[in-house]
Amino acid sequence: MNTATLDRSAVERIVRQVVLSKLAPNGQPKSAGKSTGAVESQLVVSVSARHVHLTDEHVEVLFGPGANLTPMKPLYQDGFFAAEETVMVVGPRKRMLPSVRILGPTRPASQVELAFTDGISLGIELPVRPSGKIDGTPGCVLVGPKGVVELKQGVIRAERHVHMNQQHAAFYGVKNGDRMSLRIESSCSLVLEDLLVRADETSKLEVHLDTDEGNAADLDHATRVELLRQSKR
Amino acid sequence: MNTATLDRSAVERIVRQVVLSKLAPNGQPKSAGKSTGAVESQLVVSVSARHVHLTDEHVEVLFGPGANLTPMKPLYQDGFFAAEETVMVVGPRKRMLPSVRILGPTRPASQVELAFTDGISLGIELPVRPSGKIDGTPGCVLVGPKGVVELKQGVIRAERHVHMNQQHAAFYGVKNGDRMSLRIESSCSLVLEDLLVRADETSKLEVHLDTDEGNAADLDHATRVELLRQSKR
Repeated sequence: MNTATLDRSAVERIVRQVVLSKLAPNGQPKSAGKSTGAVESQLVVSVSARHVHLTDEHVEVLFGPGANLTPMKPLYQDGFFAAEETVMVVGPRKRMLPSVRILGPTRPASQVELAFTDGISLGIELPVRPSGKIDGTPGCVLVGPKGVVELKQGVIRAERHVHMNQQHAAFYGVKNGDRMSLRIESSCSLVLEDLLVRADETSKLEVHLDTDEGNAADLDHATRVELLRQSKR
Repeated sequence: MNTATLDRSAVERIVRQVVLSKLAPNGQPKSAGKSTGAVESQLVVSVSARHVHLTDEHVEVLFGPGANLTPMKPLYQDGFFAAEETVMVVGPRKRMLPSVRILGPTRPASQVELAFTDGISLGIELPVRPSGKIDGTPGCVLVGPKGVVELKQGVIRAERHVHMNQQHAAFYGVKNGDRMSLRIESSCSLVLEDLLVRADETSKLEVHLDTDEGNAADLDHATRVELLRQSKR
């Protein structure tokens, strides 16, 4: 009963977003430059609740021949969506999460992204991986209304990362594959290190955290978020 | 079923501890001084799962006239213990946590300490408070085998803090009530700011975090923890 409640509230908050950037990077006072201010004000910090990505083939196994994902809610990045479909994720020793949201569109490999709190409840020790790098990660069983898929691998905690376009990257002085830090100011202020920079031509400026990170920082009540270049250690 | 599983694993890990301090404060290379090394090597970082503190009166209401808490496991700080007794914590809209551990000894006021993840599952918006400062905080209902207590207030997220004695305080150059930062190095490195310094004559050097903070940092697999003086902002 309590699990169902938890899951429902997680689904309602598939993506919580905070847009609070008020300072320039590196804690410098805001420049008067108009273009500078424009980049800062675009910073969005999103919390992704646990979710699943599926291949076309696995969508058909789980939801029936010819099935497609049904977009329910667009995500902040253009072209991505939360689907109406959910699956049960079953871990070892018959522990399970009854209803985990699927995000679209489909992908070349199926993948389950969980917070550590979810991993503890499932009994899976989660490796921290960038999305798509799932070699050697744990597997699980996905149960849908029309079928079952056994994933040999693909259960991860997604590595925290920041999406941006090349203009943002130039503004922050970073490039694809670099690392940055995110400072969140709240009643539980913290600095998250080692955010992977994922820079391309078209992405919006958006940090992706998981629910453990969002809850640790009380992101919902944050008063400021700052993206910082990481000093070398 | 899943809730019970979660709770059992939380109970098994009432206090997870990591002792990994390898560096001097402020990231300076380790001093050759023997006493300096002695202080650093004492740093313990503990994660407290959700728990309840009770008054003597409430112990008797919940567990019967004349009842006392039964020590099950000593905590790291001398004189404190996890009790064998647990209570059900009931929030608004009949959501509940079925079995929350009681920590002893008893106190002048009853108090429930939860992580934000627990607050979401209970439907309670948790204020972040130092232990004992519960004026104006939300209440809940506690259900024991022999009776029920309605708490008018006392449900909080405990503010992260560090216990130490005056010798530790002198070593770090801080005093009771100051703030420090804790850096945790892992696959999910982060810096937790604003740890409240609770310095007295007798405490062991120990940071107290909650499960959200421990999970965000993957404390179980941390390779280094450092207690840092906080720069003024």
